[in-house]
Amino acid sequence: MSTELWYSERWEEGRSAISLKVLEVLHREQSPYQTIEIFRTESFGTLMTLDGLVMVTDRDNFVYHEMMSHPALFSHPDPKRVLIIGGGDCGTLREVLKHPGVRHVDMVELDERVTRVAEQFFPELCEANGDPRAHFHFQDGIQWVADAPAGSYDVIIIDSTDPVGPAAGLFSAQFYGNCLRALGERGVVVGQSESPLFHAELIRSVRARLREAGASDVATLHFPQCTYPSGWWSATLGGKGVKLEEFRHADAAAKSFATRYYNAALHRGALAMPEFLRD
Amino acid sequence: MSTELWYSERWEEGRSAISLKVLEVLHREQSPYQTIEIFRTESFGTLMTLDGLVMVTDRDNFVYHEMMSHPALFSHPDPKRVLIIGGGDCGTLREVLKHPGVRHVDMVELDERVTRVAEQFFPELCEANGDPRAHFHFQDGIQWVADAPAGSYDVIIIDSTDPVGPAAGLFSAQFYGNCLRALGERGVVVGQSESPLFHAELIRSVRARLREAGASDVATLHFPQCTYPSGWWSATLGGKGVKLEEFRHADAAAKSFATRYYNAALHRGALAMPEFLRD
Repeated sequence: MSTELWYSERWEEGRSAISLKVLEVLHREQSPYQTIEIFRTESFGTLMTLDGLVMVTDRDNFVYHEMMSHPALFSHPDPKRVLIIGGGDCGTLREVLKHPGVRHVDMVELDERVTRVAEQFFPELCEANGDPRAHFHFQDGIQWVADAPAGSYDVIIIDSTDPVGPAAGLFSAQFYGNCLRALGERGVVVGQSESPLFHAELIRSVRARLREAGASDVATLHFPQCTYPSGWWSATLGGKGVKLEEFRHADAAAKSFATRYYNAALHRGALAMPEFLRD
Repeated sequence: MSTELWYSERWEEGRSAISLKVLEVLHREQSPYQTIEIFRTESFGTLMTLDGLVMVTDRDNFVYHEMMSHPALFSHPDPKRVLIIGGGDCGTLREVLKHPGVRHVDMVELDERVTRVAEQFFPELCEANGDPRAHFHFQDGIQWVADAPAGSYDVIIIDSTDPVGPAAGLFSAQFYGNCLRALGERGVVVGQSESPLFHAELIRSVRARLREAGASDVATLHFPQCTYPSGWWSATLGGKGVKLEEFRHADAAAKSFATRYYNAALHRGALAMPEFLRD
């Protein structure tokens, strides 16, 4: 019997965990910001971790990337200018570029090595990286938004890691205030907001900070995400003069591109809050 | 440093796993049908396993039990007579009895020891067991349904373990045929149908078998369930002369009882099928 190799991510300070059987360690490097590792797993395909935490797997990343992009884009009447903060694996960028009306995407990722490693090991997530509408900027997203001209984006997507370390600033009221300033009329900002089961307080805090920052409407989407803590994840949207419940349902139902999870009915369904999370 | 004790359930023939840190083994017994174990975990409260697989935890059982009961009951115009097959932990029974219109519930569980152990370690799930509307029958559910008079139930809930061993028969076309025969006009049957991520083929098969068995409408609900394989679970409903999309939304929105996950909007949302699962 050969040795079994397992990757485990411990959740909630090591009180629970998910584990994936590993066939091969494909890559490991220390970037200027974090440890990037790539594993070949038996049932989830290729796995990328950052500082030991799951970032993306072949098998289940579609849910997250689709839910981070399409609901926000279909909540804006005509999104042309999009900013992605983080999202170094480029899966969110690929989804955003499926929208034919999008003309310019600024992709602002702190760690260029995450993108270079994704290009090598997740080529399908990076298949739109050469699109002339995509503009890569490997620098600090918090500073980028602080410097952005007022009204310069239609949609801002905060595709961040957990609210610790360098990503903590991406959950602050000041950062949201800058996002709302950088959004044009009827602009929409969306950020990943962790697990409804494990982090309900964080979701409430993100919603409150978005309102304080000037969002006229706030909504939280929830969706399954097997390899993230608790297997259940959320994204919280803030709207500037748009009603998030009244997204472009007809356009979403007639979308010109393929998805694996997202559709118009799913979008509406994902906005339904579980009883314990209702304000 | 003291020894760490972990419970692990391996998913998909041991290719992935979830683990919960265990503080204490509270109970272990071999019933005539299976090994029943109770653990005190650090973050999920009390855990019951059957033959080593998670059946219920304190922390996340509410999602499963609410979604196995309320959608089916609100899909029937006026449910009075309910049959639960399995469901030995009694959490589904408790939810069903929250509906004031329900007059009689037959609870048919093969293994009485599961219920007795639940009464001891999950008293809150069993708090309605003394309700005079609840009738316990510790016997084989497949035979019960085969013997049931035609039209004798309004709602049948199949709260089973995985489709292996004794529960395999609860996923057969013949069993579904007997369920539909035992249902009255506008009757509704619902069964747990495993993980959309891991068992999409099973879901398709359950849907096809329900149609073959005579269901005039079929619908699948999906919901998060952290401690079940993949963290994402489903229940599939079959209707007899009812349209499952047109459940009693107003009644659900004005329900007279508290829930933690379920509400009318959530019910509608859970019916929205991910793109990859659409027929």
